[in-house]
Amino acid sequence: MATSVPNRLPGGKNSTAEKLLVAASELMIERSSIEISLSDIAQKSGANAALVKYHFGNKDGLLLALLARDAATEMSNLEYLLAQPITSTAKLKLHIAGIIRAYHRFPYMNRLIHYLLHETSANSADEVSKFFVAPLLDFHRRLLAEGVSRGEFRPTDPVLFYTSLIGACDHLFFGRHAMSRATGVGPVTDEVCRQYIKHMETLICGGILTQAEEAAAAG
Amino acid sequence: MATSVPNRLPGGKNSTAEKLLVAASELMIERSSIEISLSDIAQKSGANAALVKYHFGNKDGLLLALLARDAATEMSNLEYLLAQPITSTAKLKLHIAGIIRAYHRFPYMNRLIHYLLHETSANSADEVSKFFVAPLLDFHRRLLAEGVSRGEFRPTDPVLFYTSLIGACDHLFFGRHAMSRATGVGPVTDEVCRQYIKHMETLICGGILTQAEEAAAAG
Repeated sequence: MATSVPNRLPGGKNSTAEKLLVAASELMIERSSIEISLSDIAQKSGANAALVKYHFGNKDGLLLALLARDAATEMSNLEYLLAQPITSTAKLKLHIAGIIRAYHRFPYMNRLIHYLLHETSANSADEVSKFFVAPLLDFHRRLLAEGVSRGEFRPTDPVLFYTSLIGACDHLFFGRHAMSRATGVGPVTDEVCRQYIKHMETLICGGILTQAEEAAAAG
Repeated sequence: MATSVPNRLPGGKNSTAEKLLVAASELMIERSSIEISLSDIAQKSGANAALVKYHFGNKDGLLLALLARDAATEMSNLEYLLAQPITSTAKLKLHIAGIIRAYHRFPYMNRLIHYLLHETSANSADEVSKFFVAPLLDFHRRLLAEGVSRGEFRPTDPVLFYTSLIGACDHLFFGRHAMSRATGVGPVTDEVCRQYIKHMETLICGGILTQAEEAAAAG
């Protein structure tokens, strides 16, 4: 990351750094790929490629800053959600929809997370853990505790819950290519997202068993 | 893949090809990584590196053959499971445990699937879809239909179900590094696997809501 103090505009935003992030984001959406070059980003933003180095250190630094920017928006939504005067169940459903919509709105987010966690420096992976994994896990911990204390949720381990919920949401976007090839399953459209949100809400809240079966299993 | 007819032993197994697969598998387990070189594989197996080319075309061909070998065992278990005289719910629970144990037994399997699907030729991705994704999805389709017809399961879309179940199981192994960094969560031990199997069985079958909440939501 840049060690120099960025040149800030009155609005508090650094306009060149912002432009570079916007350009990178738009390029990744246009190409459905995170394979973009520094010179592509520079050309699209109208800035000099050397400014990427000045503001972000290198391309991975820029990608990390972009992910941090998108994640920050999502994480502040979580705090807002937790404070709402609604049931824990309603919060959980809104959260499930929120994760799936965020992945859909930033189609590169999921790829960036995997790339920064597994294929770059340990430092990048630590950063992703810090601004993405840790706050999300902390939110799950608090939401589950609240739901259990209100008698809405069964006692559930937050780490295991995080793993299953994030894994399931992530896989709609990460695993879809493989399914298209195997089975003629189409791409992730708005309609597929809506269906998956409904599927996940139903599955996470009530499971797959019919009520009669569940009562029999419990009885 | 090799176009020449492999030199087979009386038992029907090609001993050099087998040795190379075993060596690659052992190396990946020892190193907890799929980053192994052709010369490492050759050295460990005692075979000449040129034989990898002869039998598998190249290293990706060898990795694909290894994944196919491991997947074939798992897929034949699915057919056996479906034919058992037990409830659909019992089959589903055994299947969940089976997926998690297979990923745990072959710790490189999950990484190999991601690597072959996303970072190699379209041909490798097609192969992985054909011998891994398609048969697993087909199994889910049949198990769900059976469970619904017996009144055990709610009607559930098999593609969405596949996505959520495989994504959740996969993430225990794919996402764990990030969680360790963020939160001090430990590695995936036998005990963690057992806990996750129990968590997933409970979540997929009955969801997170208490019975009272679920009855209220349905009523």
